[in-house]
Amino acid sequence: MDRPEVDELTPPDRTLMGPGPSDVHPRVLRAMSTPLVGHLDPAFVEIMDETQELLRYAFRTDNQWTIPVSGTGSASMEAAIGNLVEPGETMLVPTNGYFGGRMADMARRAGGEVVEVDAPWGEPLDPADVKNAFDEHQPDVFGFVHAETSTGVRQPSVPELTSIAHDHDAYVIADCVTSLGGVELRVDDWDVDVAYSGPQKCLSCPPGASPLTLNDRAMDKVLGREEPSRSWYLDLSLLEGYWGDERAYHHTAPITNVYALRESLRFVAEEGIEQRWDRHRDVAGALKAGVEAMGLEMNAADEFWLPSLNAVRVPDGVTDGAVIESLLANYDVEIAGGLGDLSGDIFRIGCMGHSARPGNVSFLVSALGETLREQGADVDVGAGTETVASEL
Amino acid sequence: MDRPEVDELTPPDRTLMGPGPSDVHPRVLRAMSTPLVGHLDPAFVEIMDETQELLRYAFRTDNQWTIPVSGTGSASMEAAIGNLVEPGETMLVPTNGYFGGRMADMARRAGGEVVEVDAPWGEPLDPADVKNAFDEHQPDVFGFVHAETSTGVRQPSVPELTSIAHDHDAYVIADCVTSLGGVELRVDDWDVDVAYSGPQKCLSCPPGASPLTLNDRAMDKVLGREEPSRSWYLDLSLLEGYWGDERAYHHTAPITNVYALRESLRFVAEEGIEQRWDRHRDVAGALKAGVEAMGLEMNAADEFWLPSLNAVRVPDGVTDGAVIESLLANYDVEIAGGLGDLSGDIFRIGCMGHSARPGNVSFLVSALGETLREQGADVDVGAGTETVASEL
Repeated sequence: MDRPEVDELTPPDRTLMGPGPSDVHPRVLRAMSTPLVGHLDPAFVEIMDETQELLRYAFRTDNQWTIPVSGTGSASMEAAIGNLVEPGETMLVPTNGYFGGRMADMARRAGGEVVEVDAPWGEPLDPADVKNAFDEHQPDVFGFVHAETSTGVRQPSVPELTSIAHDHDAYVIADCVTSLGGVELRVDDWDVDVAYSGPQKCLSCPPGASPLTLNDRAMDKVLGREEPSRSWYLDLSLLEGYWGDERAYHHTAPITNVYALRESLRFVAEEGIEQRWDRHRDVAGALKAGVEAMGLEMNAADEFWLPSLNAVRVPDGVTDGAVIESLLANYDVEIAGGLGDLSGDIFRIGCMGHSARPGNVSFLVSALGETLREQGADVDVGAGTETVASEL
Repeated sequence: MDRPEVDELTPPDRTLMGPGPSDVHPRVLRAMSTPLVGHLDPAFVEIMDETQELLRYAFRTDNQWTIPVSGTGSASMEAAIGNLVEPGETMLVPTNGYFGGRMADMARRAGGEVVEVDAPWGEPLDPADVKNAFDEHQPDVFGFVHAETSTGVRQPSVPELTSIAHDHDAYVIADCVTSLGGVELRVDDWDVDVAYSGPQKCLSCPPGASPLTLNDRAMDKVLGREEPSRSWYLDLSLLEGYWGDERAYHHTAPITNVYALRESLRFVAEEGIEQRWDRHRDVAGALKAGVEAMGLEMNAADEFWLPSLNAVRVPDGVTDGAVIESLLANYDVEIAGGLGDLSGDIFRIGCMGHSARPGNVSFLVSALGETLREQGADVDVGAGTETVASEL
């Protein structure tokens, strides 16, 4: 217990092309260095209002209940599941990726029963399977992953899924961690009851305050619970006092993280949400074309490709970990390997928010190509970089 | 859902002398504007190690299990209670302030039974009452508040309390939200099993990553639970994988908040923890002497006075809200009113971390005096400011 001697903070300067966090714009970093006001200061109340308005715009919703949860993405996820699922109720979750498993774990801890709708890792859910699962299990809550960070798969046909759920009087929770602000997402038009996200993906905001939106129908369920949710910290009926009209103390909000989220969301409004989706598709499209031209294979079929998270099959002759470490050591570029069923099989390359820039993609494709070649893979680096250049 | 038009972030420049957040040092703000590395980056793992080492120093502990929880102070509080209290177990909580009530609420949500040891708001617990409560209820877990932010009371005789608990084979959880880094706290010497805190009080760090420490005995209980804790996000047996030797992914840590906490804790190490306690006592002592010389009364008896949170009785002839609003509007100074049983009866004036500076205290006492006089209270402003000047 002697005084520790710890030096000034001097982290390396990375280019973040993994599954999150993504590169943060200097304006957002500057917002984080703004001196604090109190969490009950009238000036902060105004900042809260503005942040909520900007969040609604990004989610494409008019939901009053649109707030940043005071924690990282898994906190907004547990706020959604832990408040919606009451003890004894049944939640239907998908098996086609890592985050469906996390949904199941959270639902059980909330006191719920879990039933599953199956699809292989790397494929989306089939609406017919969802309908069958509803007919068989009559779940109260249905969770699905709009953008699966573990597999690089985008779930299409969301309105079809929500319609099946509503025909069975169930509530829909959508995991939009890797889609909000980067991939088309229309909470109101698609009739999603609850959607949550993380700030450090396509919003390019440091993690710590995480978007959540609930429609009135979902919030009525939360406010009408027979017993309180199992977390005090994440209890939305209590948070209602702070983020609602009353502005009463619940807990100290992460003030600086709200500053940063507000600034990140200002970028979304400045660019325009649809233009932002287009940019992600275009820039990530060049990345995808580049790695394919190099001779690599995407894990997801083209029609389910998720621009914000590109799952690329690890080619023969190399091990994922060595490539990832080499990219970090030699190029200061972060990408990640696979999780769960896809562990060792894929690279996960993010193309999110401020990281979804032509310069980043050129650099990444060329660095990845060189590294793979050095490690012994049979890749055509020149074809890859040329394709990127022509696509961008 | 039109594009919202939200201007640049321009909050007012406040002097924060309320119950938290406190003023943040420019060096910590600068740390928050540092570009991010990934939460699994080897460089971040080193930053985690350093932060843990610095936290141990501040807590005066060798506990391996010393981490920042990814949320604000109430998250570290719920991590402590939700992991230690198992369904069917009994937790003993105090009734002498706002935060004992929150402990009770969290314990019930964890599936526990709650029993109480009474003391009036504004007084500490009497060890004899604690002993009687143990003999009567034989609780499994005992929670107490070391520094009650709602009443300005410091709990003395902590070793006596922990000894009673351990004689009854119970675990002790100490709320150190408003003491860590500002008021004498010795986790190991005092035999506290679990202690939690917030960063935005005496550490003067923006909220978002909150200190928690558990000794091996407490961690063994957590790792030996029959059923998992009711929150996935705050499950310490899962966090063990990330903050322990394995460094495996659990959730995305709030990287920037960890940067800031590390920098705040570097200040603690530079100043020296005991010197820091002394500074808080001296600077807050001048504040206390000043308000008393002005004719105001402290709510807590001198022997239980909490330097970091000064509860001052609202004098006759004024209403607390009008004074607080006037201080904010005319002086940009934040203080707060009372909560619960003391609502309307006290002002809560913080003197924490970087806010515990002579300049802040001079300014606050003079601004408070002027404001009270304007609002019709019979106070001797000159005596107050003179006393502060001579004490500092």
